[in-house]
Amino acid sequence: MKFNNLEELLVNELQDLYSAEVQLVDALPKMQEAASSPDLKEAFKKHLAETKQQVKRLETALRNLQADAAGVTCKAMKGLISEGEEILKSQAPAILKDAAIIGAAQKIEHYEIAGYGTAKAHAKMLDFDEIAELLDDTLQEEGAADKKLSKIAEGSMFVSGINKKASS
Amino acid sequence: MKFNNLEELLVNELQDLYSAEVQLVDALPKMQEAASSPDLKEAFKKHLAETKQQVKRLETALRNLQADAAGVTCKAMKGLISEGEEILKSQAPAILKDAAIIGAAQKIEHYEIAGYGTAKAHAKMLDFDEIAELLDDTLQEEGAADKKLSKIAEGSMFVSGINKKASS
Repeated sequence: MKFNNLEELLVNELQDLYSAEVQLVDALPKMQEAASSPDLKEAFKKHLAETKQQVKRLETALRNLQADAAGVTCKAMKGLISEGEEILKSQAPAILKDAAIIGAAQKIEHYEIAGYGTAKAHAKMLDFDEIAELLDDTLQEEGAADKKLSKIAEGSMFVSGINKKASS
Repeated sequence: MKFNNLEELLVNELQDLYSAEVQLVDALPKMQEAASSPDLKEAFKKHLAETKQQVKRLETALRNLQADAAGVTCKAMKGLISEGEEILKSQAPAILKDAAIIGAAQKIEHYEIAGYGTAKAHAKMLDFDEIAELLDDTLQEEGAADKKLSKIAEGSMFVSGINKKASS
């Protein structure tokens, strides 16, 4: 890894996020399939569509910077997904498994929130306003996806949320 | 991986966090050494002391649940640290390397924020108030560490923050 200026660092960051999102496009259908709660299945379905859009945004940003999207493997996302797969394969009552899947998914969301937050800060610092806006669009979606997962887990509107059921 | 009730899931989550923190106790001194900014070095030094305390809190929580702390490897943290090590070994101007190290550290913080958030929610659901409080103490520290890193990076008080310098 080598970078001589902030633009080169930004390219590295975007390539890492691109690899992360591409891995997630593969993983989300498995998470959707393993989930039991219809709300949770729907949340993963919606986030898959968003993630595909996020991949395109990164392609646009990297094209603007005349850099390739492919060629990098995001090791952190590989670890996060590998950890998630253990949960998908776990033996547990359905509602409890949902609670665990939500935990794994929120770790993934937080990885992306941190990654996009840093990349957006660097894009802004470089006055790459268009790229900063693209990254912010995704950042907002990741934040919303994380909150949605908390809402499903905590059952803030209904006492019969997943966490509550899983403790009985 | 197997869990039949929410308490067993919580034990899994705490063991995963324990492995993550133990890995981080090893990684933080390397991050401190690789950083150039005195503020950043100081932040890592402070967070190492906090992390050692967080390990002890997890040991306490797991002891309360009559579970072992060791024996699990957090693959996600392994991936995050492996990604961070590439940055530590990277060839880049010092200020720019600091910006990249901060990005890697914030990904680690966010992993922990998500992990402790889920575990705390599950502990509360189980009415394990003492454990929930221990987890919340750590959660607050992780959030503060993340904000401190943003502040160092963005140089909110001084225009000459790391990000700005790295773009010139």
